[in-house]
Amino acid sequence: MIEFKVQKKSKKSKARLGILKTKHGIVETPCLVPVATQAVVKTLDSKEVKETGSQILIANTFHLHLRPGEELIKKSGGLHNFMNWQGPLMTDSGGFQVFSLGFGRDFKINKILKQSIGGKESVLTKVLSGNQPKLLKITEDGVYFKSLIDGSDLFLGPKESIKIQEKLGADIIFAFDECPPPNASYEYIKNSLEKTHKWAKTCQKERKTKQSLFGIVQGGKYSDLRIESAKYISSLDFDGYGIGGEFGGDKKNMTGILNKSISFLQEKKPRHLLGIGRLEDIGLIINQGIDTFDCTIPTHYARRGIAFIGNKSEQSLDLNKKKFLLDKNPLDKKCKCFVCQNYKRNYICHLLRAKEITALKLLTFHNLYFFNNFVNKIRQDIKQGKF
Amino acid sequence: MIEFKVQKKSKKSKARLGILKTKHGIVETPCLVPVATQAVVKTLDSKEVKETGSQILIANTFHLHLRPGEELIKKSGGLHNFMNWQGPLMTDSGGFQVFSLGFGRDFKINKILKQSIGGKESVLTKVLSGNQPKLLKITEDGVYFKSLIDGSDLFLGPKESIKIQEKLGADIIFAFDECPPPNASYEYIKNSLEKTHKWAKTCQKERKTKQSLFGIVQGGKYSDLRIESAKYISSLDFDGYGIGGEFGGDKKNMTGILNKSISFLQEKKPRHLLGIGRLEDIGLIINQGIDTFDCTIPTHYARRGIAFIGNKSEQSLDLNKKKFLLDKNPLDKKCKCFVCQNYKRNYICHLLRAKEITALKLLTFHNLYFFNNFVNKIRQDIKQGKF
Repeated sequence: MIEFKVQKKSKKSKARLGILKTKHGIVETPCLVPVATQAVVKTLDSKEVKETGSQILIANTFHLHLRPGEELIKKSGGLHNFMNWQGPLMTDSGGFQVFSLGFGRDFKINKILKQSIGGKESVLTKVLSGNQPKLLKITEDGVYFKSLIDGSDLFLGPKESIKIQEKLGADIIFAFDECPPPNASYEYIKNSLEKTHKWAKTCQKERKTKQSLFGIVQGGKYSDLRIESAKYISSLDFDGYGIGGEFGGDKKNMTGILNKSISFLQEKKPRHLLGIGRLEDIGLIINQGIDTFDCTIPTHYARRGIAFIGNKSEQSLDLNKKKFLLDKNPLDKKCKCFVCQNYKRNYICHLLRAKEITALKLLTFHNLYFFNNFVNKIRQDIKQGKF
Repeated sequence: MIEFKVQKKSKKSKARLGILKTKHGIVETPCLVPVATQAVVKTLDSKEVKETGSQILIANTFHLHLRPGEELIKKSGGLHNFMNWQGPLMTDSGGFQVFSLGFGRDFKINKILKQSIGGKESVLTKVLSGNQPKLLKITEDGVYFKSLIDGSDLFLGPKESIKIQEKLGADIIFAFDECPPPNASYEYIKNSLEKTHKWAKTCQKERKTKQSLFGIVQGGKYSDLRIESAKYISSLDFDGYGIGGEFGGDKKNMTGILNKSISFLQEKKPRHLLGIGRLEDIGLIINQGIDTFDCTIPTHYARRGIAFIGNKSEQSLDLNKKKFLLDKNPLDKKCKCFVCQNYKRNYICHLLRAKEITALKLLTFHNLYFFNNFVNKIRQDIKQGKF
């Protein structure tokens, strides 16, 4: 079980400084939660992940259920031992991935999912080539879908999600929710929310371990539904909260909705924002009282050759560009990470152009360090009353 | 300039223990020289390479000339600084790569070269699709060929090779030789040897830096030509020797030829065997008096999912195989490397099957450590008179 304590609150915003204690160590919040989709932060080993200043990771229930399967991970002593990460660990509910199969076709999420399973030709592609995506059947109990790996019939609902997450054994697990499509109508989201709330209760009943269970607030871009959801989820005895789904694509919308709904959650419990954390978002969401957030931006962009830097005129560099072959600066002059202390832009550019894997690892390391350091500075600012 | 001292000789074979001093540190011989083709040991950073127990690396003049170019590396402070490897460093002459373009078609080396430039569709492929490989024109002065990257016309000869290697700035550089095709006739090799010997002298005249220059012994599978070459190269004042080319594919042939020819080289100078170093070869070549040898086996096989282990019944494991998902042992129970201390076969198998890059890096690390440790044990055995 986790323990969470708010240590200090900002006077100017809802930002707060906290300590999240888990069986596997302490997390200082606010905090980025790097994504270890398939039980690995892509390109790095767990020692390197630690060296980037990462405190807690989130692994993916959907992907790990499909491959290698939760039974295998349980037999290996649980996810911490399997992936050799002895720090705090979350697993998501699998909801986002399974539902995104449904709205994937409309939003070309197809491509993203294909990538996430290693670029392999997938069943998804075949199914999506028809007129209608027939991948999902949503019932009151959960979702029927087909495996991306071997096309087999699968079912995931609140009971199944909890059972899988219990076998994986992360410190923090999430309730199974319906993650509605970004273009869903008010009516659709309202109905969907009923399911999410019902499933939240089912998850609570089902849990048998001492893992901490976070309930998930949904409601799309509709403030009244977000408030309704926050009130309901708060009324149940969860150990913390996840806030999921879309907010309407606009940052003002997002902060507006967080602003209106977050105060209905129990203040003493940690709040995790699912899948959001661009550099420009981080300050905004922390100001709204978010304690932790997971985001693939630092790692995903690294594998595309992008380095994030702390230069006011430029926030990122595309190291694929030929001009960097002549640039003898470190990625970020002020960065103290292992990569910036030892390697120059020209070398990383050469490695990328020569298709060398090492480039992806060096960029992933730097980006994670950079993001972690960025959030660490915000923690210092809150501590000193400057945020 | 290097200094080389033979510290102890085996009483039972020609094996010898040596110390090779360079400006960038000491190499205890016999020693494996891991391959850093494009200024990187694929999948690793230079700190990791050091941690595998690697003492000295060899980078590839041909590839680095093509991309990013020796001028750029010189402007970056030389290869040591460019790749952040402050240990001893060799560059090969570029001979093998450029000549293998010529015999590539007959021996399907095409595929290997394509791989070495990152799987990109190359000019080589196009040219090889014709009836005759028209990639090379060998003259008395060197070789005309086309760039694998942009198809441009290039020329490499002894003068050019030395100039490139001087700009790269490795501690040890090699004379430019013709590396004849494996199926070449006695007549062909005899003529080729004349060129190689002439070029050896040209290289000596051209050198202007204090880098150490190794002359290369060729002669294919013909003992008399190997002896002739060893005598001639030994008569020139090289700082050490490289032994290149094919020996007829048979291990007995190889050791027989080394046995007959190596004694004609000056004993006080180091001997490097180019491109040979399978586990089963290492003892044999050290017994023939080889001091250093480079080989892609540990790194190349790692990227195919193969781990080398010290089990008498099995010398390697194919971690792609599904059965390893259930195997909770480290790659090698007796191995003390970072990977074997922290990760299990099941996890590495999962990472491979999930197409995770981290798997390739973990396997590369282990294989290099394993090979380095294997050679280290031979050094200890020579020291204790057991080899």
